[in-house]
Amino acid sequence: MKFLLLTTGGTIASVASAQGFVPALSGEKLLAACPLLMGFEHDLEIVDVFSKDSSNVHPQDWLTLAESIRKAGIRGAGDCDAVVALHGTDTLAWTSSALSYLLYDVTTPVVLTGSMLPPGAPGSDASENIYAAFQFALQLALYTRGGVAVAFADTLIHGPRVTKIDSRRKKAFVSVDYPLLGEMKDKGGHKVAWLTPHSPKFSGRRLWDVPAFETDIALVPIFPGMKASSLDAIIASAKAVVLEGYGLGGVPYMHENLLEPIGRGIASGVPIVLRTQSPFGGTDPSIYEVGRKALDLGVLSAGDMTREALMVKLMLLLPLFHGKELAEHLGTAFCDEVA
Amino acid sequence: MKFLLLTTGGTIASVASAQGFVPALSGEKLLAACPLLMGFEHDLEIVDVFSKDSSNVHPQDWLTLAESIRKAGIRGAGDCDAVVALHGTDTLAWTSSALSYLLYDVTTPVVLTGSMLPPGAPGSDASENIYAAFQFALQLALYTRGGVAVAFADTLIHGPRVTKIDSRRKKAFVSVDYPLLGEMKDKGGHKVAWLTPHSPKFSGRRLWDVPAFETDIALVPIFPGMKASSLDAIIASAKAVVLEGYGLGGVPYMHENLLEPIGRGIASGVPIVLRTQSPFGGTDPSIYEVGRKALDLGVLSAGDMTREALMVKLMLLLPLFHGKELAEHLGTAFCDEVA
Repeated sequence: MKFLLLTTGGTIASVASAQGFVPALSGEKLLAACPLLMGFEHDLEIVDVFSKDSSNVHPQDWLTLAESIRKAGIRGAGDCDAVVALHGTDTLAWTSSALSYLLYDVTTPVVLTGSMLPPGAPGSDASENIYAAFQFALQLALYTRGGVAVAFADTLIHGPRVTKIDSRRKKAFVSVDYPLLGEMKDKGGHKVAWLTPHSPKFSGRRLWDVPAFETDIALVPIFPGMKASSLDAIIASAKAVVLEGYGLGGVPYMHENLLEPIGRGIASGVPIVLRTQSPFGGTDPSIYEVGRKALDLGVLSAGDMTREALMVKLMLLLPLFHGKELAEHLGTAFCDEVA
Repeated sequence: MKFLLLTTGGTIASVASAQGFVPALSGEKLLAACPLLMGFEHDLEIVDVFSKDSSNVHPQDWLTLAESIRKAGIRGAGDCDAVVALHGTDTLAWTSSALSYLLYDVTTPVVLTGSMLPPGAPGSDASENIYAAFQFALQLALYTRGGVAVAFADTLIHGPRVTKIDSRRKKAFVSVDYPLLGEMKDKGGHKVAWLTPHSPKFSGRRLWDVPAFETDIALVPIFPGMKASSLDAIIASAKAVVLEGYGLGGVPYMHENLLEPIGRGIASGVPIVLRTQSPFGGTDPSIYEVGRKALDLGVLSAGDMTREALMVKLMLLLPLFHGKELAEHLGTAFCDEVA
């Protein structure tokens, strides 16, 4: 088997400095710090793609990373069998969503991981997460399963269903309303990678020739007392709006009537997508009156998409579609990101 | 013992209509639909305070509800021993945060609850949540423990530490980075309310003569590719900004440099509070360079406050304080909402 290891910086490649933790370690140094991998008997190519704190990751970096994965020649003879990419945790869920769309044609498994503590810190999770990522990648390759996934804290999560639920603890990532793809299980004192029977569905769809990201989107959680005039101003200056309502997608219309700016925005051609502000459970504005009134005005529902999967999808679709076409593509699954 | 039951509408008081579920049931009807409470041998006064879907709850309603609790005379002779308030789940966490601040002087326990399914729906959680709320309220009164708490799905959660984590499932609320106050435990086939040893700390602080809520706040989650010019426009038109960064509070400064609009905003006197966009783990921008640079510009850290507890606190403080005083009060605990 041949593996490709990509590094991009992040805590997993960080060292202490006078400015706080900053990314500095190369892939070579990282692997040397991962004793669990010492018996790993496979070809390994290492490419340091970029080196930054993932808070600084930009859609342009998603394109760079996707190109690095393709460039390594993972589709022809002599190609590698699996990719492991190390990434900061801050935007890991955003990047895993983006790669899930961008790598629509890549059949080789891509496993992303990172760590909550730098490799040198006491109790660091860097080594065990890297080890798990390689073990999951190996299993996925053996079973010829593709797709982008995140290995973290002994779980394997489908790329566009990941969210960072915790800013501090090692169990920082969860699978949102979607089955786990794998777990590290204890077997005679060793942890082994186990894949669940669940396999994501991939449409192989691509809607762009050259992908471009429109980031002029307003992401707006609603709160009690939010002024209709504020929402008016936000909608007027964005190319699209993701509105995070309450529960299944409730929008207030008493005291401050937020339906008015929504109606004005839609009338002026701004697409408005309604999502829940709860991390789990998804959006269904048709159940309660406070959601239906927004649907009646023409808002689109995010369904069960995570914030990350929805925002990235919208960034990719906005340069290409509007109106009914946008609505149709937004609701159709590319990579099992929406049910 | 004397109990006060307040109703405010919400799913727990809803019935099906052509417009979707709408609030309609009075407190009397609700109790009649709660067979679990039939053996409850205590005085009970019922007040229907208002009746609305909680997506429509406005800060003005928080004042009305707080007044109803006080008006029932819970501090003198002949007063009631505990309050149970029924509320929609959509903004339940917002209201529980608001009441935690507003009822700074109320020593009687206030237990909020609601339900994910209306009382009439198959498998509804309305009856069991109402039952649990009364049982928790009784225990709190017996142990002379005060404060505002939310009873939901067999748990009791401290008011300003509640968030709605799930838009659909019955376990919809969690305690964020804070111990549970109680649990319903099975005892010989019956569920009984059990209080944990953890008791919140109350400062008894109040900073207002008449509470007022400033809601001209921009709540802004960061996303990869977010434009500095968009953030500039948002900051320029708000009285305060809650910026939800990545992880412990990371703010991007490469590609699009969001530190520039932040610096301009602070220079022009707009307070900017940095929070994590992860539901758990809290905010500490001092750990990574991507947070420190924002701190250096003068952003305030939300610490471990939930979005709901932070936003409501800011609404209450903004009419009264600015600059260093605002920063000091924001970081000081009123009701164990921040560590």
